[in-house]
Amino acid sequence: MAAMKWWGWGLEGVEFTHEDKPELGPFIKDKLGVDVGRATAAPTRFQDLDLPAPTLPDDLRVALEQAVTNDFVSTDPLDRVVHARGKSIRDLIRQRRGDLPRVPDVVVRPGSEDEVTAVLQAALTADAVVIPFGGGSSISGSLEAPADETRPVISVDLGRLDKVLAIDGTSRLARVQAGVFGPHLEAQLNAQGYTFGHFPDSFTHSTLGGWIATRSSGMQSDRYGDIADLTKGLRVVTPSGTLVTRPVPTTSTGPSIREMVLGSEGRLGLITEATVHVRRIPESRKILGYLFPTFADGLAAMRDIAASECSVSVTRVSDAPETQFSFATRKRSTLTDKLQSKALTTFLQRRLGFDLSQMCLSFIGYEGTAGHVAEQRKAVGRIVKRHGGLCIGSGPGALYDQKKFDTPYIRDFLLDRGAAADVSETSMPWSRLTPVYDAVSAAAHGAFGELGVQGYLMCHLSHSYHAGACLYFTFAFEPTPGGDMIVEYDVVKSAIQQAFVDNGATLSHHHAVGTEHARWLEQDISTPGVVMLQALFDGTDPGKNLNPGKIV
Amino acid sequence: MAAMKWWGWGLEGVEFTHEDKPELGPFIKDKLGVDVGRATAAPTRFQDLDLPAPTLPDDLRVALEQAVTNDFVSTDPLDRVVHARGKSIRDLIRQRRGDLPRVPDVVVRPGSEDEVTAVLQAALTADAVVIPFGGGSSISGSLEAPADETRPVISVDLGRLDKVLAIDGTSRLARVQAGVFGPHLEAQLNAQGYTFGHFPDSFTHSTLGGWIATRSSGMQSDRYGDIADLTKGLRVVTPSGTLVTRPVPTTSTGPSIREMVLGSEGRLGLITEATVHVRRIPESRKILGYLFPTFADGLAAMRDIAASECSVSVTRVSDAPETQFSFATRKRSTLTDKLQSKALTTFLQRRLGFDLSQMCLSFIGYEGTAGHVAEQRKAVGRIVKRHGGLCIGSGPGALYDQKKFDTPYIRDFLLDRGAAADVSETSMPWSRLTPVYDAVSAAAHGAFGELGVQGYLMCHLSHSYHAGACLYFTFAFEPTPGGDMIVEYDVVKSAIQQAFVDNGATLSHHHAVGTEHARWLEQDISTPGVVMLQALFDGTDPGKNLNPGKIV
Repeated sequence: MAAMKWWGWGLEGVEFTHEDKPELGPFIKDKLGVDVGRATAAPTRFQDLDLPAPTLPDDLRVALEQAVTNDFVSTDPLDRVVHARGKSIRDLIRQRRGDLPRVPDVVVRPGSEDEVTAVLQAALTADAVVIPFGGGSSISGSLEAPADETRPVISVDLGRLDKVLAIDGTSRLARVQAGVFGPHLEAQLNAQGYTFGHFPDSFTHSTLGGWIATRSSGMQSDRYGDIADLTKGLRVVTPSGTLVTRPVPTTSTGPSIREMVLGSEGRLGLITEATVHVRRIPESRKILGYLFPTFADGLAAMRDIAASECSVSVTRVSDAPETQFSFATRKRSTLTDKLQSKALTTFLQRRLGFDLSQMCLSFIGYEGTAGHVAEQRKAVGRIVKRHGGLCIGSGPGALYDQKKFDTPYIRDFLLDRGAAADVSETSMPWSRLTPVYDAVSAAAHGAFGELGVQGYLMCHLSHSYHAGACLYFTFAFEPTPGGDMIVEYDVVKSAIQQAFVDNGATLSHHHAVGTEHARWLEQDISTPGVVMLQALFDGTDPGKNLNPGKIV
Repeated sequence: MAAMKWWGWGLEGVEFTHEDKPELGPFIKDKLGVDVGRATAAPTRFQDLDLPAPTLPDDLRVALEQAVTNDFVSTDPLDRVVHARGKSIRDLIRQRRGDLPRVPDVVVRPGSEDEVTAVLQAALTADAVVIPFGGGSSISGSLEAPADETRPVISVDLGRLDKVLAIDGTSRLARVQAGVFGPHLEAQLNAQGYTFGHFPDSFTHSTLGGWIATRSSGMQSDRYGDIADLTKGLRVVTPSGTLVTRPVPTTSTGPSIREMVLGSEGRLGLITEATVHVRRIPESRKILGYLFPTFADGLAAMRDIAASECSVSVTRVSDAPETQFSFATRKRSTLTDKLQSKALTTFLQRRLGFDLSQMCLSFIGYEGTAGHVAEQRKAVGRIVKRHGGLCIGSGPGALYDQKKFDTPYIRDFLLDRGAAADVSETSMPWSRLTPVYDAVSAAAHGAFGELGVQGYLMCHLSHSYHAGACLYFTFAFEPTPGGDMIVEYDVVKSAIQQAFVDNGATLSHHHAVGTEHARWLEQDISTPGVVMLQALFDGTDPGKNLNPGKIV
């Protein structure tokens, strides 16, 4: 698996473009005042970066080379820069600027759990800092060394641990090495008729270990469960040896060790292996599009589906601004498409009384035997109808399904044009959805107003649970002329995050804490919660060698 | 809620009897060599107990009285004895013997979270030990002070915190005080059309806070989820203030604080309140009985049901010894019953080729709309048939449903007759069920042989999950003449527990660690797991005032 661009999302040469989407340019011009025709803000050229020389004592270098052999100890500048950070908007802006105060001194790539152990031992002996690196897709600042870190910093890239080691078909469990990327994991499982069913937006560029270390959630988690549900056994190399939790369905052995590793962001050790749920590839899989008159109607329908006897794989509803953005990203359409679209519009307005400016696009996914899928569609259809919604067939869903991993590229596209875009997501009880949505809207638009910028905010419900849901917000704006993009971004991001914790929502549903969200942690989990985390980290890692500064 | 008997399970006057079960006496005579006609071993009389005087410094007594008022600070001997221990077989034997080296010095009953805080502050100021007490039904030794504890010991009985504070119908969440007993919780919820759906064997005599503190599981957890799934928000009074976790469906705020409180057995603080899932009382509810030719057939059917698109509320299969025990507890039957039973036996043997000595009784539960229940029954029926099983209707299931909370009384019944009976339960991946079952059988019968006693071992699968299940073992024997029952019990119990951890199973699926299972903890969660727990407890409770000696 090749590393992502040092300055942006995805592989070199893969980019988002507006050129095949005739409505997008005008939409962005209208909403953000940005002219997409001109890429005005290129990243610094790699050769112009001012990269500090690595601090790597000879003893440590020798010990690392003994641990993983010379081939897998790298001080190559590109390697170091790629491993310096994740892909938060703050990361992207600073990488593009060439703002690199503390890049890792060395990147090591262990090929086995024994090698991971040897790397950790070498690091502890030398009092070095260890930062585990999976796909590097973190958007919470989990991968960056503190700017003032004076000890050697080792980025441990786990990408060589990429095998499905065994599938226990009887138990529907697979033992998998933690460094495997999403597509490679699915390919290995699919070859034996199984799927893991975990598809976060970052799927192409993130790893099993990274998902576990950040409490990831995927697009089909409504059916398969979040990573915390899917992960049973764990192997983690820690300062006191290899932690092993048993792949049992549930256990009553005190506070859950498994649930301490989940979300630990490298602060407890290096995850080398997990035993995870797998399922047979379903016979049938469908994502259908729906339209609701308003966002409130769509949310109420998802809430009723969650309480019903239906089992679905995806529940997603966009608000009106996101629906309009989705329609603006349509590709050039044929005459037939246009006529159909016109007919639908007329039907929605004349027959159903939709106000098109309030209309919301929704996707609901179904998986299983053909009979099960047909039945679920019917049962969901009745609930949708009760809330004034309309099924628009499988075309939009199939399109969404194909394009779902492309969204992160849009941030680079906008940065190239001088505009910032980012996401903030949260979860809350069903009764808090509307208050949180309203508070976030007020907070974000308040921040745009305070800055004096033209901004856009949109949102979708991305996951439904028995007692609540995840709301996923995206915001974009062009900073003021001469303004510092990071400073102005912070104003908007902070306003949104504060609105979450002030209104009964959590600081993040599935993007972890890192350094980006650490400010709100105590407001979310209360002071004794922070005391508990600090106790856990201090007692497990007394030398503060394991990814210091993250979470608390 | 009245306290349980100081020497046994349940309320004074409620007892198990063999007298209305004509086959039970002969069965027990045959299997254990015990004559049920004669109660030979009565508990010590209360007035003969040698109870040490309470160690309660005046300052502490005054502070406790200020915290909860005089009425709720008790040094009454019966109160102290009832709060000294839980209901493990070791607890029962020692209580009956009057073996009481370290009973609590005082029992306090706070009526609000503020009072709990005041009690904890008073305890910390006096360097006293605090042991939270819910229903006192622990069978893992979670409630007993260490025998050599020299500091004052305070049992904090949370029974006054017994209210459902609010139901959020939109979110399907209820805020509930932690001291509420099962029946009172259900009554309060039922009055508003809701159910919690958590029915452990201890239901009548256990509390919400106790379920959370021990990671409880109930009979319908296949549908409703274990207590860890049901519990979202928590309020816990800790030495660093009141811990509050938000009742969000899931969160990415680092290692899970919620999952640290679950199973914490009072070591992190006193749970005062939880926000939990509730559901509308289902329209229809059915438990059907099934018979399988062998235990292996029954297990395979449960495994297939767990993988299927069916959703059931109970999956339970007894092995042949437990099936025979169940049949032996039948009440006196009418002539019609006898004829029906005879006809069934003939049908099973002649038509289906069952070997009655291998036959296994199973219960599968269904809940929901009448249509859903009917469909699930049909789909499950096909799976059962594929494994050679037969539905025997709703009669046995209804009987099971009525009698399910009576089982714990049988231990007292046997103790009265000089015999010991206890349970050990575990969970494991589906592929490990048969190896664990065989290993436990060999270990238990090996232990009986080693002791030279006639023993009985029986087992049922009690919960099914995607990737594994819970096996629940019950064992009974009459100790050797002149032998120490606790010593001989330990031989059998240890052999079973060791077989669990040696064969890929966990030390307990839902009965917690306490002191009974602490010996096997490190073998289960590995040395770094113990390091993590110790770090958490030491950092949260530096003075070791909170239920010391439990778990690790």
